[in-house]
Amino acid sequence: MLSQFIEKKMTYDGTQLRSLFAYLDHGLLGPSVVAFRGPCNISFDHMVDGEDLLAQAVIAGDDMLHFIIEVFDRDLFSGVALQRLFASICRDYLNPQALRALGEPGLVRDGDDIYYSDRKLSISIATKSPVSTMVHFAMNVTNKGTPVKTLSLEDIGVKPEIAAEDIMKLFKAEYLSIMAATQKVRPVP
Amino acid sequence: MLSQFIEKKMTYDGTQLRSLFAYLDHGLLGPSVVAFRGPCNISFDHMVDGEDLLAQAVIAGDDMLHFIIEVFDRDLFSGVALQRLFASICRDYLNPQALRALGEPGLVRDGDDIYYSDRKLSISIATKSPVSTMVHFAMNVTNKGTPVKTLSLEDIGVKPEIAAEDIMKLFKAEYLSIMAATQKVRPVP
Amino acid sequence: MLSQFIEKKMTYDGTQLRSLFAYLDHGLLGPSVVAFRGPCNISFDHMVDGEDLLAQAVIAGDDMLHFIIEVFDRDLFSGVALQRLFASICRDYLNPQALRALGEPGLVRDGDDIYYSDRKLSISIATKSPVSTMVHFAMNVTNKGTPVKTLSLEDIGVKPEIAAEDIMKLFKAEYLSIMAATQKVRPVP
Amino acid sequence: MLSQFIEKKMTYDGTQLRSLFAYLDHGLLGPSVVAFRGPCNISFDHMVDGEDLLAQAVIAGDDMLHFIIEVFDRDLFSGVALQRLFASICRDYLNPQALRALGEPGLVRDGDDIYYSDRKLSISIATKSPVSTMVHFAMNVTNKGTPVKTLSLEDIGVKPEIAAEDIMKLFKAEYLSIMAATQKVRPVP
Amino acid sequence: MLSQFIEKKMTYDGTQLRSLFAYLDHGLLGPSVVAFRGPCNISFDHMVDGEDLLAQAVIAGDDMLHFIIEVFDRDLFSGVALQRLFASICRDYLNPQALRALGEPGLVRDGDDIYYSDRKLSISIATKSPVSTMVHFAMNVTNKGTPVKTLSLEDIGVKPEIAAEDIMKLFKAEYLSIMAATQKVRPVP
Amino acid sequence: MLSQFIEKKMTYDGTQLRSLFAYLDHGLLGPSVVAFRGPCNISFDHMVDGEDLLAQAVIAGDDMLHFIIEVFDRDLFSGVALQRLFASICRDYLNPQALRALGEPGLVRDGDDIYYSDRKLSISIATKSPVSTMVHFAMNVTNKGTPVKTLSLEDIGVKPEIAAEDIMKLFKAEYLSIMAATQKVRPVP
Repeated sequence: MLSQFIEKKMTYDGTQLRSLFAYLDHGLLGPSVVAFRGPCNISFDHMVDGEDLLAQAVIAGDDMLHFIIEVFDRDLFSGVALQRLFASICRDYLNPQALRALGEPGLVRDGDDIYYSDRKLSISIATKSPVSTMVHFAMNVTNKGTPVKTLSLEDIGVKPEIAAEDIMKLFKAEYLSIMAATQKVRPVP
Repeated sequence: MLSQFIEKKMTYDGTQLRSLFAYLDHGLLGPSVVAFRGPCNISFDHMVDGEDLLAQAVIAGDDMLHFIIEVFDRDLFSGVALQRLFASICRDYLNPQALRALGEPGLVRDGDDIYYSDRKLSISIATKSPVSTMVHFAMNVTNKGTPVKTLSLEDIGVKPEIAAEDIMKLFKAEYLSIMAATQKVRPVP
Repeated sequence: MLSQFIEKKMTYDGTQLRSLFAYLDHGLLGPSVVAFRGPCNISFDHMVDGEDLLAQAVIAGDDMLHFIIEVFDRDLFSGVALQRLFASICRDYLNPQALRALGEPGLVRDGDDIYYSDRKLSISIATKSPVSTMVHFAMNVTNKGTPVKTLSLEDIGVKPEIAAEDIMKLFKAEYLSIMAATQKVRPVP
Repeated sequence: MLSQFIEKKMTYDGTQLRSLFAYLDHGLLGPSVVAFRGPCNISFDHMVDGEDLLAQAVIAGDDMLHFIIEVFDRDLFSGVALQRLFASICRDYLNPQALRALGEPGLVRDGDDIYYSDRKLSISIATKSPVSTMVHFAMNVTNKGTPVKTLSLEDIGVKPEIAAEDIMKLFKAEYLSIMAATQKVRPVP
Repeated sequence: MLSQFIEKKMTYDGTQLRSLFAYLDHGLLGPSVVAFRGPCNISFDHMVDGEDLLAQAVIAGDDMLHFIIEVFDRDLFSGVALQRLFASICRDYLNPQALRALGEPGLVRDGDDIYYSDRKLSISIATKSPVSTMVHFAMNVTNKGTPVKTLSLEDIGVKPEIAAEDIMKLFKAEYLSIMAATQKVRPVP
Repeated sequence: MLSQFIEKKMTYDGTQLRSLFAYLDHGLLGPSVVAFRGPCNISFDHMVDGEDLLAQAVIAGDDMLHFIIEVFDRDLFSGVALQRLFASICRDYLNPQALRALGEPGLVRDGDDIYYSDRKLSISIATKSPVSTMVHFAMNVTNKGTPVKTLSLEDIGVKPEIAAEDIMKLFKAEYLSIMAATQKVRPVP
């Protein structure tokens, strides 16, 4: 698994969640996680979460830390499970700083979301392209421009670029260790 | 997904990690998680983790809280990802009590293991049967009889039966929400 | 598996055969079968059966009873097998009334079609979306507007709405029993 | 798909339900359906239906018409769906003769079983081998030696050998037409 | 597997690499290999090889011998492996004539390409459609119009139509023998 | 993909073709190819090729160069395709030396076999374990002890250990390049 923090800020509008984004736009061949910073503004046409479509949700924020994960040869179930492990990794990484900055009750992962009480830190979706399985996961850098009550990395005093690198490193380790775990076990009857 | 706490204590010797254990021994048809309490003593013949086999590991404990998960139609990658989500759920559930009982640094999930500093709380393996994907996950109820430096539910003041029910409930919710997430998303190009 | 009879009449033009139709348009999350009534008029652009495309077939009818089935995690072979079981269920359900109304030889299932002698009662196709496997199955309510010699539910005196509910109930039971049958069997060598 | 009626009578004891039975014992390479006649007596060790195991069922008969189907590259869901189509084909083939011989209400398929009122004509199981998906389907030739209330081919005046050839022919046509249906369809969005 | 040499010359512009090309345009139902002759000129929009896209490659030739392979029920890994076997078959078939015409060092297969020293004979890509796995493989009939240093069938004195028929025959035999090899083997522990 | 030449000579008796052989016996985790030298003597019990079983074949040789390949997450079709690419790589690697030593017609790959006229150089089988796909491929080092007319590496003057290292290096490059080819391509409609 390759990873890269893309220095150039970009507006995430949903079009980045397409197969081979990391390869064709950033040269990363194979399973990958990339991160970048920028506003979020997903048009209805590029919204893929049926729940959001039904709710006619506004998904937006003035500055978010975005991650795009792509893996190959996996079904969507695996993609969603990876998405939640990614959320869990983010939560575990950020929680000590959240507790220092804001006190109890700390961050809670609920499915693919991270909350601090009723304040939502993140958005995410996992889906399929015809050749791969993909995840978008993003956390507010600021609460500005978000349509609901949110928490942001600013609130907990975390620098997005450093968090991005650390989280991608942790996720790569998790992915590699999952792969290894599938290649070292005997079957049962 | 069905779940059941099996009241009868059983020694986990590795033979319980077989397809349809929950159905044939406890009547649970379909994806399931069952829990029971009892010693752990896995003979070399029923050890399926290649790492343990290579290390000629002793896997034992006088009293552990065991979980056996079975899902259908999933590859081993999904099984390992579910295993780690299960570990993450256990860690998140137990950590507040661990902090109260033992103070910092609290519990840490590392792959499929849960640690408190250098004390190991859990053992786990995910594998394939010819008809399903299976996970064994167990946490020490006591530190007696364990071959390494361990932490136990006793140390953190958690009643195994209550923890089992709570954790199975959380895992079922996670599993159902993963399933739903695979059935409500539009594809990307 | 969820089911719903959609009260509002709709022209089936082929666009309804798309992933998440039941979820995004009717709120049914997960494997589903929905039914509705309305004309059939499939433009060449939305025709997916290669045989029809090669034959430049006209697929039309003034009033049909439509079913759309969506299942997840299954290949197209499974989808076609389900389609034929659906046809078999329809045939078995309708045949007693067909015999009463029209006498011998009764209805015959041939692949995914149902016939009474040379009169065609139904049309059907099974295909893949990027996230699911889908079936359209429809039976003439009237023979008006059909391009070939047809049989209709009118001919056999069946009320489409009642048949729809009954058939969806039978199909749900079949689907659930197939699922159960995949989760209760030991492997063979 | 190849088929063969095996002239030599054999007791079906469950061991015939193993991968490559048709190839290694009868030279049929690839997807196949074979039929033979003989008693049925399945020991507990070779019983693979969990429901039968839980019920400690006796599965026996003095003379049955057995079919063994093997397909490759298919999951168990497909195997069960094929099994039910096979049952449906048998029911449709035998019913006219059943009606002539016994009158109403005729044969009914219920899941993988065929009944005449409360008399059971058939037994069946679909399962996985490590390299294929397999079905055993058998119908009583006589009611002798059966542990429950049964119907037999004798009762409806059907010659087993002829029925076997006819049914295998119909099933082969169904299988080939399913295969073709998976190779002639355009995807939907 | 069906095959056909399409007599009519066509410009390969990338649009031919779509699912059911052989069926909808030439009536070949099921796994297939078709060949035709014509110029090659792939627009950027129909270029599917990410490497070419990144390199902004020109893929062109005034006259090439094109093959389009389609198989069903296979992942892309299988498709790429088949592509390389196809390249290997071409190389083995053409090499004796290449040696006679041009002497040492003869043709070399490198991945999906065939070279004579630094002269490239072929282009190829394997990819997925939503319903199948597809390969385009083409060899220069002439070196005219090619953007790099090439070898052509003219150089080695091979008549494209005859080569096409021979190569398709060899590939069909290979494919059928691979299929057979998956249906005649016992599993290992 | 990892590779290793195992220095210790071993008799290949079929038991080495089991999942995780490379990991549990030689510490290679993940997809792998290992080679070793030794006699070949496969008992009927460990023969997995149905063709050999039907023919009651004797598979033996006093000294052979053995390769065992294991890959994960692939079906048997892929395994057989890899097996044939492996045979093709061996043939291409050895042929120049075969021509120097023995003259025309050189080595020919036919399916998974390599021949020099009617002299057989190699044996091979591809099969499934419950957790992986495996290939055994072996070439005679000597013609002694072989039950049919054979060619050996001795005949063509090739040192087995050097050939093993070279061939494993070529196969690893092929495998990696196949993997890359599955992760750099856009889908087609």
